Amino acid sequence: MRTQQETDSITLLGQKNVQYGYEYTPAILETFVNKHPQRDYWVKFNCPEFTSLCPITGQPDFATIYISYIPDELMVESKSLKLYLVSFRNHGDFHEDVINIIMDDLIKLMNPRYIEIWGKFLPRGGISIDPYVNYGRPDSKYEKIAEQRFIQHDLAGMDKIDNR
Amino acid sequence: MRTQQETDSITLLGQKNVQYGYEYTPAILETFVNKHPQRDYWVKFNCPEFTSLCPITGQPDFATIYISYIPDELMVESKSLKLYLVSFRNHGDFHEDVINIIMDDLIKLMNPRYIEIWGKFLPRGGISIDPYVNYGRPDSKYEKIAEQRFIQHDLAGMDKIDNR
Amino acid sequence: MRTQQETDSITLLGQKNVQYGYEYTPAILETFVNKHPQRDYWVKFNCPEFTSLCPITGQPDFATIYISYIPDELMVESKSLKLYLVSFRNHGDFHEDVINIIMDDLIKLMNPRYIEIWGKFLPRGGISIDPYVNYGRPDSKYEKIAEQRFIQHDLAGMDKIDNR
Amino acid sequence: MRTQQETDSITLLGQKNVQYGYEYTPAILETFVNKHPQRDYWVKFNCPEFTSLCPITGQPDFATIYISYIPDELMVESKSLKLYLVSFRNHGDFHEDVINIIMDDLIKLMNPRYIEIWGKFLPRGGISIDPYVNYGRPDSKYEKIAEQRFIQHDLAGMDKIDNR
Amino acid sequence: MRTQQETDSITLLGQKNVQYGYEYTPAILETFVNKHPQRDYWVKFNCPEFTSLCPITGQPDFATIYISYIPDELMVESKSLKLYLVSFRNHGDFHEDVINIIMDDLIKLMNPRYIEIWGKFLPRGGISIDPYVNYGRPDSKYEKIAEQRFIQHDLAGMDKIDNR
Amino acid sequence: MRTQQETDSITLLGQKNVQYGYEYTPAILETFVNKHPQRDYWVKFNCPEFTSLCPITGQPDFATIYISYIPDELMVESKSLKLYLVSFRNHGDFHEDVINIIMDDLIKLMNPRYIEIWGKFLPRGGISIDPYVNYGRPDSKYEKIAEQRFIQHDLAGMDKIDNR
Amino acid sequence: MRTQQETDSITLLGQKNVQYGYEYTPAILETFVNKHPQRDYWVKFNCPEFTSLCPITGQPDFATIYISYIPDELMVESKSLKLYLVSFRNHGDFHEDVINIIMDDLIKLMNPRYIEIWGKFLPRGGISIDPYVNYGRPDSKYEKIAEQRFIQHDLAGMDKIDNR
Amino acid sequence: MRTQQETDSITLLGQKNVQYGYEYTPAILETFVNKHPQRDYWVKFNCPEFTSLCPITGQPDFATIYISYIPDELMVESKSLKLYLVSFRNHGDFHEDVINIIMDDLIKLMNPRYIEIWGKFLPRGGISIDPYVNYGRPDSKYEKIAEQRFIQHDLAGMDKIDNR
Amino acid sequence: MRTQQETDSITLLGQKNVQYGYEYTPAILETFVNKHPQRDYWVKFNCPEFTSLCPITGQPDFATIYISYIPDELMVESKSLKLYLVSFRNHGDFHEDVINIIMDDLIKLMNPRYIEIWGKFLPRGGISIDPYVNYGRPDSKYEKIAEQRFIQHDLAGMDKIDNR
Amino acid sequence: MRTQQETDSITLLGQKNVQYGYEYTPAILETFVNKHPQRDYWVKFNCPEFTSLCPITGQPDFATIYISYIPDELMVESKSLKLYLVSFRNHGDFHEDVINIIMDDLIKLMNPRYIEIWGKFLPRGGISIDPYVNYGRPDSKYEKIAEQRFIQHDLAGMDKIDNR
Ligand SMILES: [Ca+2]
Ligand SMILES: [Ca+2]
Ligand SMILES: [Ca+2]
Ligand SMILES: [Ca+2]
Ligand SMILES: [Ca+2]
Ligand SMILES: [Ca+2]
Ligand SMILES: [Ca+2]
Ligand SMILES: [Ca+2]
Ligand SMILES: [Ca+2]
Ligand SMILES: [Ca+2]
Ligand SMILES: [Ca+2]
Ligand SMILES: [Ca+2]
Ligand SMILES: [Ca+2]
Ligand SMILES: [Ca+2]
Ligand SMILES: [Ca+2]
Ligand SMILES: [Ca+2]
Repeated sequence: MRTQQETDSITLLGQKNVQYGYEYTPAILETFVNKHPQRDYWVKFNCPEFTSLCPITGQPDFATIYISYIPDELMVESKSLKLYLVSFRNHGDFHEDVINIIMDDLIKLMNPRYIEIWGKFLPRGGISIDPYVNYGRPDSKYEKIAEQRFIQHDLAGMDKIDNR
Repeated sequence: MRTQQETDSITLLGQKNVQYGYEYTPAILETFVNKHPQRDYWVKFNCPEFTSLCPITGQPDFATIYISYIPDELMVESKSLKLYLVSFRNHGDFHEDVINIIMDDLIKLMNPRYIEIWGKFLPRGGISIDPYVNYGRPDSKYEKIAEQRFIQHDLAGMDKIDNR
Repeated sequence: MRTQQETDSITLLGQKNVQYGYEYTPAILETFVNKHPQRDYWVKFNCPEFTSLCPITGQPDFATIYISYIPDELMVESKSLKLYLVSFRNHGDFHEDVINIIMDDLIKLMNPRYIEIWGKFLPRGGISIDPYVNYGRPDSKYEKIAEQRFIQHDLAGMDKIDNR
Repeated sequence: MRTQQETDSITLLGQKNVQYGYEYTPAILETFVNKHPQRDYWVKFNCPEFTSLCPITGQPDFATIYISYIPDELMVESKSLKLYLVSFRNHGDFHEDVINIIMDDLIKLMNPRYIEIWGKFLPRGGISIDPYVNYGRPDSKYEKIAEQRFIQHDLAGMDKIDNR
Repeated sequence: MRTQQETDSITLLGQKNVQYGYEYTPAILETFVNKHPQRDYWVKFNCPEFTSLCPITGQPDFATIYISYIPDELMVESKSLKLYLVSFRNHGDFHEDVINIIMDDLIKLMNPRYIEIWGKFLPRGGISIDPYVNYGRPDSKYEKIAEQRFIQHDLAGMDKIDNR
Repeated sequence: MRTQQETDSITLLGQKNVQYGYEYTPAILETFVNKHPQRDYWVKFNCPEFTSLCPITGQPDFATIYISYIPDELMVESKSLKLYLVSFRNHGDFHEDVINIIMDDLIKLMNPRYIEIWGKFLPRGGISIDPYVNYGRPDSKYEKIAEQRFIQHDLAGMDKIDNR
Repeated sequence: MRTQQETDSITLLGQKNVQYGYEYTPAILETFVNKHPQRDYWVKFNCPEFTSLCPITGQPDFATIYISYIPDELMVESKSLKLYLVSFRNHGDFHEDVINIIMDDLIKLMNPRYIEIWGKFLPRGGISIDPYVNYGRPDSKYEKIAEQRFIQHDLAGMDKIDNR
Repeated sequence: MRTQQETDSITLLGQKNVQYGYEYTPAILETFVNKHPQRDYWVKFNCPEFTSLCPITGQPDFATIYISYIPDELMVESKSLKLYLVSFRNHGDFHEDVINIIMDDLIKLMNPRYIEIWGKFLPRGGISIDPYVNYGRPDSKYEKIAEQRFIQHDLAGMDKIDNR
Repeated sequence: MRTQQETDSITLLGQKNVQYGYEYTPAILETFVNKHPQRDYWVKFNCPEFTSLCPITGQPDFATIYISYIPDELMVESKSLKLYLVSFRNHGDFHEDVINIIMDDLIKLMNPRYIEIWGKFLPRGGISIDPYVNYGRPDSKYEKIAEQRFIQHDLAGMDKIDNR
Repeated sequence: MRTQQETDSITLLGQKNVQYGYEYTPAILETFVNKHPQRDYWVKFNCPEFTSLCPITGQPDFATIYISYIPDELMVESKSLKLYLVSFRNHGDFHEDVINIIMDDLIKLMNPRYIEIWGKFLPRGGISIDPYVNYGRPDSKYEKIAEQRFIQHDLAGMDKIDNR
């Protein structure tokens, strides 16, 4: 079990009266220390409650966002991640831009060895869009992992989509 | 969020009285600028509302079309993509030709680094046809990605088909 | 097996060069004789390839149409039913009107004891519409069947919809 | 466990060199004695391997046939039922006629208290047909059961059909 | 097809620059005339993109809302229904209250013969809540339909929930 | 929580070295006292690990057995029920007989207010058999429940069977 | 939206440092006022995270608990319901008893017009147990609803169980 | 769209009175010209309506056959492919032989760059057999593709089989 | 079609009065000659009806066994394979040992180029065990195939297990 | 079958009155000898009944834990594994830490050639977390297997998550 010292960077989890902000707020993200930095391991967040606005029409968009990363020294705390994703609620941007922004913010926050973001958006006009982006720390083996995973992206288990 | 300048090539999204044409019209396709050209990322369109005609019998065909690409400088705008796909509605061609035509048009439009098209058509005579084609920019690493993905096509997660 | 006489009202099934018309054409419907009129039985058509146009915007709509009926003396031939449904392809009408029109045409064609039509349309603006209408011959037990089935409509096995 | 006497009407089950006939042969059906005639109970056969021919075009049709009955004194033996269903293999008839014929033959064979037959055929021309017929012994409570089940047919758990 | 007169109460469908408001706005709802008032029929809306706020914690809630009704003289137009549901986006209320409010607004708007609303909300604290409410016009047969459907609610096809 | 006295009729649950017998042994069944006899409630056992032998060919049969009952004063203990079902392992009987026997044994054991047994067997010769039997205490309201449930058996949510 | 007065009976939702107790504690349940008592409506809780202990062996049991009720003047608050269900964590009781206890506690708490509880437990020894209990206020129409729903319990959409 | 010249090798598609032969007839296969020979692409046929006979017992076998190939100059026409597969209807051969024969015939017909055949047969005696064979043109890169795909066959997305 | 000579090593398929033995009997396995030894191809058996005993407690275990191999000169006949698997019925061994034994027996029987066995057992104590073993002929390319497939085992399409 | 000597390290399986401890107890783990050390094979445990506590809020967490390993000389006994996993019941730790701890304990216990642990936790705050860790014996081919499998983790068959 973690000591209090190991968790005292966490201020939002279990807190009363968390403020939910609905404008894009990357500063809300928090980290805690990785206790197993001697090995690589995967952490994946499944986030089916993402919603933002279309920057042209203003109508709401909905998506499931999948975030997978290999931590280095810091890890993103999940309650703060939730508040961060919630902060896109009244923010307008293209699907393709949203996932690039999320990845940039998480790289800046915790400098992971590797990270990938996959958004699966609900259809507009009968077409749905699924952008995907990934990153491996430059000039490291993780850069190669990023290349390999990028090439194999969505090859297996492709979703069957019928808009119902 | 994108500035107005970054979106002013987009004329169809959010527009009133868009004309739906039902004869093959590649000229309707529009692009917008990729804001993240420094990295490779995937954009995938799921299009379960595709319909065209059989060139021999004239009867309607139905398909789900999956389009995945890695953008370079330009990206296809989804509302114009919809109108483009709709324009096949009264057009007659073989399944295998349709997929090749769509890929040729999208390469011409946005000169992507990589693109692939997968059509899954409803059965005729108890047999359904699923053509797939891909492309990587010649003499680049994307040509190699195309070769690798082509070899691995449909190896994993193959659909179970029972015609119900 | 049916004699030739029992099938000679059928002119479209197995025919070469059937003309596919894409404007609403109820006259194309054909019937054949019910050989089991002494008993009630159900015939159900599952039609997942229905498409028509939105009367306001002109954009294509897609639906699965389910047609169930209890025949009296005549039965609708399935190839002609296909051509009839295809004839909505370039026709514009509201989802709620389409279902009523199909039922009216089939009642007029074969005067069934009972009939019901259920349309399940693909979403527009994130919302899908599923209209349902039924009919039992007036002043017969089939009118009561219609009332009972109408009350119980969609109570069991309601579709889970998530727009993917 | 059944005595030998209780099973000696069974000649096909476990037999070597059963002849598979491919022309409609109701005479092949066999029965055995119901050991629990003092109570009503259901027996249901699920038969996903049914195939026959279209009487107009000669092309093969495929269906899953579901047979449910309440036995009286006799019960149909399943191996003979299989051979009976196989005997439709090169026989041509409309879907709606096939299930009426099967029901008539089984009523004649074992005089059940109640029986129902549901055929779910694979699509032709994008449309699939699911005929259903049932029977309750006239002037008995089973006639009323037939009426009730007929009215409620397919109300719950309706199949989602997408032709894939 | 509908005449222009039959659709001129519709001002939002196909319109450019629709304003998306994110505070509860029942006034945005529009109707059109029912062309088939001589018969009862069902219209069902599947709305998987509903989101509102928790009135206590302010955190976003997500739900699929199912709306089924039997029209009388007026019918709710689906684009305006979308805007109405979107207007709950920054509104805070309990799940149980939300569906009561939606039903009250739709009754007031179109005075339907019958209406029912079913909300299926995503879990909070590992528990999800699915409220359901219905209404039949008082002192009519529709009041009885409401009672019958209420008693049978969720008896068949109950969702399997495992929070993944 | 139950007192020791309330559970001391249970000798098999949690016991070391239970003997698994593979010949039909109804005597192994045990009961415990119903603590809520003032109300009706349902208890259902799902038993997907049933296997017995074909009495004619000796080959093994496999089934999922569903047992639902309304207890009166006694309830069947689940570990003893398991051992009872296991005791059919090397026993040969027809599918239709097996479920009648199970029901007879459980009625004799605990004299329930109501009980039903549904067996879903794996296919032999491409056909699977699903027998169902039920019972309500004679001359009580449970006899009527049995009649009603028997009539509605398998009407909703009928399994789709494709032998894979 | 609810006024502060309408929610001030709620002390746990959104609270910091809620104490999770792991011994059965019905006193933790809280209520709030029903704002729509003039009509009947359904509220259903899906609770897939229930765990308790076997009273004989002490080993943990897992279940999904479904709770549906028609409120009268009071409604159970969902955060307190969660804490109540969590309080079974280290409590030992039979599956059949657990469901009865939960119903008794909720009736005592809010005196609902109607309530039902369905537990679906994971298998022990290859057999899973699904107890169900319901209640309608005596000498009211809700008592009759309870009888009707009890008779129809699990008739439609019965789970397919294969222990994987 | 294809010119008439480009389709005049096609004699069966859209033809009246096609003769369905039920003895193995590879001569019925027809081809048309590949219009995109400058690139590799995949064409896949899903054929869930395959049936043949067991060469030992004479009983019918059923399978779904999946055929995927990379065309060179010729492509197999789908209506003739259907008639070819239908011609196995009264032909007896082992599952393992059937797919080798189909591949040999299609190689001979169109000399493809690559081809693979996967048969998924329904169970006999509780066991189902899924043979798979592939081919790459010798001494070309397609031979290597064949080796790679063969090694990876069925590694991902393996079917779950339970014989129901 | 195979000649009689090509099938006369087969003595069990289609035979009357096959004896089902329930003690482990590898001698019952039979082979027939591979007619396509000039190429590699896959044969896969899906066997969902496997049952054996726990060697410690004696209680029955259930599994689906998947067997895939590349034949050399001999192939295992499926009826004899069934009888072989049935012979584990009253045999006790650990899950991990069972699949090693099956593989050893099949290697000894037919000396295949490659073979793999995957067992998926039903849970005991809430945990299910899935052992997997493979083999490639030593000092051949098949040994390398075995290594590659072993490394990739279960990477894609991993089963979701919930014990229901 | 194993000799008594080969199983006498097993003290918990089949034992009466096993004590279930609910505080983290790695000492309870037991091993038995691998009888097939001459080959590599996979053993996988599927454990859908894992529950622990959140170290910050104290609320219960739920997960399915998947454990796959290649044994060397020792193998973990499954009953002791169950007791070990149960011992996390009242233990508090982060999801990411839990799977690292489980892997460390199992490596220490049996020194496997390779091992991997995948946890799939139920959502908190609408987000679920799936940590994954693996290990190959250093300076052996298993270290390379670990690297390869780590890179390909979750590429195929990614779960679709919708929190219902
Ligand atoms: Ca898939
Ligand atoms: Ca299907
Ligand atoms: Ca389907
Ligand atoms: Ca869906
Ligand atoms: Ca879908
Ligand atoms: Ca359903
Ligand atoms: Ca269901
Ligand atoms: Ca779920
Ligand atoms: Ca889900
Ligand atoms: Ca079902
Ligand atoms: Ca199936
Ligand atoms: Ca799969
Ligand atoms: Ca299955
Ligand atoms: Ca499961
Ligand atoms: Ca299952
Ligand atoms: Ca999958």
